[in-house]
Amino acid sequence: MSKLVIVGTCAFDAIETPFGKTDKILGGAATYIGLAASQFKVDSSIVSIVGEDFPKEYIDLLTNRNINLEGLEIVKGGKTFFWSGKYHNDMNTRDTLVTELNTLADFNPQVPASYQDAEIVMLGNLQPTVQLSVIEQMSNPKLVILDTMNFWMDIALDELKTTLKKVDVITINDEEARQLSGEYSLVTAARKIHEMGPQYVVIKKGEHGALLFHNDEVFFAPALPLEEVFDPTGAGDTFAGGFAGFLARSGDITFENMKQALIYGSCLASFTVEKFGTERLENVTTEEIRKRLQQFKQLTQFEIELN
Amino acid sequence: MSKLVIVGTCAFDAIETPFGKTDKILGGAATYIGLAASQFKVDSSIVSIVGEDFPKEYIDLLTNRNINLEGLEIVKGGKTFFWSGKYHNDMNTRDTLVTELNTLADFNPQVPASYQDAEIVMLGNLQPTVQLSVIEQMSNPKLVILDTMNFWMDIALDELKTTLKKVDVITINDEEARQLSGEYSLVTAARKIHEMGPQYVVIKKGEHGALLFHNDEVFFAPALPLEEVFDPTGAGDTFAGGFAGFLARSGDITFENMKQALIYGSCLASFTVEKFGTERLENVTTEEIRKRLQQFKQLTQFEIELN
Repeated sequence: MSKLVIVGTCAFDAIETPFGKTDKILGGAATYIGLAASQFKVDSSIVSIVGEDFPKEYIDLLTNRNINLEGLEIVKGGKTFFWSGKYHNDMNTRDTLVTELNTLADFNPQVPASYQDAEIVMLGNLQPTVQLSVIEQMSNPKLVILDTMNFWMDIALDELKTTLKKVDVITINDEEARQLSGEYSLVTAARKIHEMGPQYVVIKKGEHGALLFHNDEVFFAPALPLEEVFDPTGAGDTFAGGFAGFLARSGDITFENMKQALIYGSCLASFTVEKFGTERLENVTTEEIRKRLQQFKQLTQFEIELN
Repeated sequence: MSKLVIVGTCAFDAIETPFGKTDKILGGAATYIGLAASQFKVDSSIVSIVGEDFPKEYIDLLTNRNINLEGLEIVKGGKTFFWSGKYHNDMNTRDTLVTELNTLADFNPQVPASYQDAEIVMLGNLQPTVQLSVIEQMSNPKLVILDTMNFWMDIALDELKTTLKKVDVITINDEEARQLSGEYSLVTAARKIHEMGPQYVVIKKGEHGALLFHNDEVFFAPALPLEEVFDPTGAGDTFAGGFAGFLARSGDITFENMKQALIYGSCLASFTVEKFGTERLENVTTEEIRKRLQQFKQLTQFEIELN
């Protein structure tokens, strides 16, 4: 078992979908990553920042999952990062209605001393310089995983490229992979992104699954075809958290093991989208996960005669 | 081994892609289906119509693959169906530049007597009433596979629904599945299409692979991530032909065997898109296919602990 450091937002989200809307509920990349990784009972620590308005019940929720919160800075008198968004009918596109950075604007992450020797670091989507400062606090990480988005490619490309040099695994969506590489083919895009630093490139395609590239090898993890996607918020972070958590539990960072990690990530994400926010991820049982992994096997495994 | 009847167009295509353009070359759904199915050395027969301008070399190409052409009507003084299209830079969308129906306008398919007892029928994209007339000529088919498109949903929906009642497997793309069912979720769409007749629903998602639905079971065949898609023309028909050809060779139409058939279809389609028209499919070797099937295994197969 490896120790896992998780960096990202803990936030309030207000979400509107064709199925309904929420008030401010628990959200944020680090939250989803932490909850997903906690399925593997790993020793993890969230490094993040919130305001005094962040409810004790959310803190308890995370600590009850054995997530260390020494690195969660609570700013006196400050307000927690708030995001609000509205999904369109196809659930694949959304409009951001509100982004209030609040305390996040001054986030200066401090990795707790007892986690600076963690083997695995999962950097949720944040300003690339903030992500880099976390990498630099680690003594000797075996695997640094970074999630990012087009926003940083638009306004902080040089910083992102500097950070990427210290990253082993990048997770981005297909459009972002194309933007970052300037290549339309995802195969060629992955090769160019390899050259920027990450040995492993995970390209997330939402309902179309995810691809893992490593040198000339490629693995594909499908998304489970679902009758209904209720709320896609946090699916990508859940996927990343499942991926990182599985690797941390096994302590095995080979390509072969990453295939399993990817399937676990996709499996957990398939639960997250079934209800608003973190609700489904909080309540999912080991037995439900086991059954759904079985569905992933049935979905993809085949025997073929090679004559 | 089962006999296979293939119905569809034999045509001239003129194709323009970002990589170049062709003069009139061999095209048509039945052509691609026949060439793909011939990889399995099945006893197949193409039922189609062409004009006197259809070159003897194309006829020879097909007969040299042991494709029976008794059902290919050659209209004296007639001209062969001609389609011309131009692909956009993303290769996922295209504009039709020319459609000349020519002899196809009067296509009245006649299944040769010696093939009316064929076990498997592959109906390429055509007017639904024409597809139905073929089904009605068969004595006792074990499996009727139908490909169709949005065009017929727009102008001949009632006829299509009548035909679908006699169909076992439908292959359509994701947008068409949504149009036909009125459902956005592909899971729900497949269920509604089941109710129209087909026990098996294959939803083609192009570069995102294909899904096979049957009652509550689902299987996913990925598309192989390719460095370059040179010309997508015929990929869907190659996929269908590989699917039908594999089933005809094995004579096994169980869901488990259809999984393999789907992988073979996806495998053959991955060759078709590498060059213009039928060129790559004509020249692909058994060894190349074997190697690529191995890539499909590496792409999708994983071991997972279910604890």
